[in-house]
Amino acid sequence: MEKKTIITISRQFGSGGRDVGQQLAKQLGIPFYDKELIEIAARESGIDPELFEDAEEKTSMGFHLFGALGYSLGGPLSTITELSINDRVFIVQSQVVKKVAEKGPCVIVGRCADYVLRERNDVLNVFIHADMQDRVGRAVHSYKVDDRNIEDSVLKIDKRRANYYEYYTDFHWGDADNYDIAINTSTFGIEGTVRLLRNIIQAKEI
Amino acid sequence: MEKKTIITISRQFGSGGRDVGQQLAKQLGIPFYDKELIEIAARESGIDPELFEDAEEKTSMGFHLFGALGYSLGGPLSTITELSINDRVFIVQSQVVKKVAEKGPCVIVGRCADYVLRERNDVLNVFIHADMQDRVGRAVHSYKVDDRNIEDSVLKIDKRRANYYEYYTDFHWGDADNYDIAINTSTFGIEGTVRLLRNIIQAKEI
Repeated sequence: MEKKTIITISRQFGSGGRDVGQQLAKQLGIPFYDKELIEIAARESGIDPELFEDAEEKTSMGFHLFGALGYSLGGPLSTITELSINDRVFIVQSQVVKKVAEKGPCVIVGRCADYVLRERNDVLNVFIHADMQDRVGRAVHSYKVDDRNIEDSVLKIDKRRANYYEYYTDFHWGDADNYDIAINTSTFGIEGTVRLLRNIIQAKEI
Repeated sequence: MEKKTIITISRQFGSGGRDVGQQLAKQLGIPFYDKELIEIAARESGIDPELFEDAEEKTSMGFHLFGALGYSLGGPLSTITELSINDRVFIVQSQVVKKVAEKGPCVIVGRCADYVLRERNDVLNVFIHADMQDRVGRAVHSYKVDDRNIEDSVLKIDKRRANYYEYYTDFHWGDADNYDIAINTSTFGIEGTVRLLRNIIQAKEI
């Protein structure tokens, strides 16, 4: 296997994918990017930071305009002001994702990082999912989701993530073949999943 | 992780999934079922063995009649003679899958075994995929696929596998969250994938 030092994590809501990424980065001693990434992007772009909040879960357009366009508009932000604010946010985020990947090994959760970094060959793309029962449990305990029908809420958040991903990429969110490896944390546990990924990255008897 | 001793493998055509299963079974010293399974089924049912050939790639119906029915018709074959021959073949195969799983640890490739065995908690469901370039290469060299557009042929075989799977189950073939783990053999190689799965099964520092 080619040496993979950058790990992108896409995850179902409530799957523990963010925890996996955070623990993995900690154990490997490499940077972790999630909300942090948004803040860097906001700071660098000058776009109102509030616009970045939950951008991933805001887009609901179901077509591939941007995937078709490609976002390979490499120029400064001023050249793309005719685009919607969501698209501008995505482009700035993508630039930041590329920049942090350029710096060296790291873990990046969400932000279509797998797609943004698709030209690099040192990236391991991971999808984290879990059984609905565990996702509902995590939604209630970790995210304080309080709803009559929690399962619907969990699925709705996934739907928004899928829409965002599919709007900005050419791929279908959650398809096994988008990723190098997809893991069910209900089977392996959070710690087991972290261990599995750590061993892959360290190529220690995988 | 609960002890998983039965491994089901679903696989894209040309991904090397069958090789992974065969080598894994050999290394673990447990039975491997694929064509062998069909022969056992044929022998036990009395149905013409030829009908079993490539049953997996024959069904092209796109709806979920059978998934809706459930195939939990536990009775002898004589009670289900009003069903189509394909459905009867599927039921007999499912009975065989259940029987071999009952006997103990094994590797089962294809045959919707993940769905058939979904009530057991000692099953590890694996999906194996690969990049198109490698699949085309394998199609040409291992399966002697000779076609002007090999990529189309490869995708067509997948399409048939997906139809078969989706006709007989409630799931969407290739969705990451159907499986405990999904692995890209283009990233890990056949040997690397076998090693990864063997370590998971043996719970050796995964």
